[in-house]
Amino acid sequence: MSAVPNVSQLPDYLKLNHAFQQIRNNVRTTPLLKSDTLSELIRGEVLIKAESLQITGAFKFRGAFYRLLNLTESQKKQGVTAYSSGNFAAGLSAAGQLLDIPVRLVMPHDAPKSKVNNARRYGAEVILCQCNKPSREEAASAMARQIARDHGAVLLHPFDDHEIIIGQASVALELQEQLAMSGKSCDHILCPVGGGSLVAGSSLVFGSNTQVWAVEVDGYQGMGISLENGRRSRAKGHILCDCDALLALEPGIANLDIVLQTGVRGITVNPQKSHDAIRLSFQEMNLVLEPSGAVAIAAIMDNPALFENKTVVAIGSGGNVDPDKYASIIQA
Amino acid sequence: MSAVPNVSQLPDYLKLNHAFQQIRNNVRTTPLLKSDTLSELIRGEVLIKAESLQITGAFKFRGAFYRLLNLTESQKKQGVTAYSSGNFAAGLSAAGQLLDIPVRLVMPHDAPKSKVNNARRYGAEVILCQCNKPSREEAASAMARQIARDHGAVLLHPFDDHEIIIGQASVALELQEQLAMSGKSCDHILCPVGGGSLVAGSSLVFGSNTQVWAVEVDGYQGMGISLENGRRSRAKGHILCDCDALLALEPGIANLDIVLQTGVRGITVNPQKSHDAIRLSFQEMNLVLEPSGAVAIAAIMDNPALFENKTVVAIGSGGNVDPDKYASIIQA
Repeated sequence: MSAVPNVSQLPDYLKLNHAFQQIRNNVRTTPLLKSDTLSELIRGEVLIKAESLQITGAFKFRGAFYRLLNLTESQKKQGVTAYSSGNFAAGLSAAGQLLDIPVRLVMPHDAPKSKVNNARRYGAEVILCQCNKPSREEAASAMARQIARDHGAVLLHPFDDHEIIIGQASVALELQEQLAMSGKSCDHILCPVGGGSLVAGSSLVFGSNTQVWAVEVDGYQGMGISLENGRRSRAKGHILCDCDALLALEPGIANLDIVLQTGVRGITVNPQKSHDAIRLSFQEMNLVLEPSGAVAIAAIMDNPALFENKTVVAIGSGGNVDPDKYASIIQA
Repeated sequence: MSAVPNVSQLPDYLKLNHAFQQIRNNVRTTPLLKSDTLSELIRGEVLIKAESLQITGAFKFRGAFYRLLNLTESQKKQGVTAYSSGNFAAGLSAAGQLLDIPVRLVMPHDAPKSKVNNARRYGAEVILCQCNKPSREEAASAMARQIARDHGAVLLHPFDDHEIIIGQASVALELQEQLAMSGKSCDHILCPVGGGSLVAGSSLVFGSNTQVWAVEVDGYQGMGISLENGRRSRAKGHILCDCDALLALEPGIANLDIVLQTGVRGITVNPQKSHDAIRLSFQEMNLVLEPSGAVAIAAIMDNPALFENKTVVAIGSGGNVDPDKYASIIQA
């Protein structure tokens, strides 16, 4: 672990735990499943935190629910607008429905149908953005800003937001409880990273005995490059990749600020490797993971020596994948 | 509920709970997941108890582990033999490995590869039975008897066994705890039924305020016919059906004895309907179910009026399915 220079700026354990207690009756406690195959591979213990079984099929519901819960009354009336490649969209929609807060969403035109439908099912208004330039994220973001202005709504960023990071930290607090109940602690936690809210939240919870890893895919390792450079840096993108939730080119500012202080390390996998992780999760654990949700497992499969003899938790962060895509992956 | 004539013969709550406490640190607490789609369908609340996420991918591990744990020391040394179409086989193998008890298994030659591999992975000796007459179950059963005799091993029946039923009852006790924690009770529980250990165990736990249902597939409704006739009766079989864990032609004697006393009701679904339930579980909940494991959900989809305005739990009893099969179902 590197030194922690500006601890006072970071939300403390009390604040994180208060947030967890605020939302825990509205989020699902997701199971922590041991993988025998991966445990044998590293001659240690590998546990999968199955956030694919969270409400709306991804951890994103947690941060969205916490964020909406803490809006002012007048903000709740005006509603919120956001852009998202999918899982935040569904999480925000479901949270909005539960709390009776209007949600307007901008989504990329090529977002998986299952994710678009998921959002609409929860009563959100979905606007598809046709533009890919300078990147699909940035085009959709600009469109969302305009819509928020038009409606006097609060514009939410799917990850670059302190309150959302605090909400996502509930994954790690719940995990800590589960580990403690079975008398365990963990040496490593691997988090799939798009913009970095899950990894930032997790790194706030776990202390220096646990190494938190930011797992990204080749071409989209904005967080990894930023960690190396010690400042916000941009990945190149432009690689075809079905990890649709991990395509952010650079980390959130708030997120990077946290992970630079907490000593997170970066690791990158080939997106094809997430397919191996999907097959393993299906065959051994009956767990549906989407390509983005399986990269933490892929990182272990790809680098077993890094984790030898250790207790390792991989977060299976989401499971929303179109049936044709999933079928082709498990049959390969 | 019908009257309960011979209550004294049934294991009481204390015994059931003692068994649950004996095994609970070795079994997984499986999540209870609300289905919004099914809840809307019945205008009530439908919860899925996801035993597909149990160790070895099905509830069968519970009964097997409890049964082996309570063998005498000399029995543990000699080992056990059993026949099973698959999920009991894997559960017994894993339990044997954990408790260091030799396991010899007879399986039908056409059991899904995933189930055969599952058993072998846990160190069991697997013997495939090529014979289908008078039924694949009965041919395999005769072979298992012979092997047990040859090795001086305890012959286990996969379901017609009081101790195994008591072990399976832990699903219902765990469910009761989960419901109580969220201040809920349930009006109906639906259990997939092969020989009837899960439904018998569940019916011992829940009182007269909860209707327990035995869900079978057309052609293999031995339990349903037996409940109607008030005595053990035999289904016709001979229908092509991919619910490979539900093909027993008649219920276990111990199992039927219990369910006749506890007022279980029977319900039958077309095996094709389980495919609809599999698709729903995949799309809405990221849950892999096998055809046999999805019939309780199929029964709700098929008979929504029966459950209108109620709180209903469907047990998703297993999720071990070959990838090609699963791919073809979710793409249909």
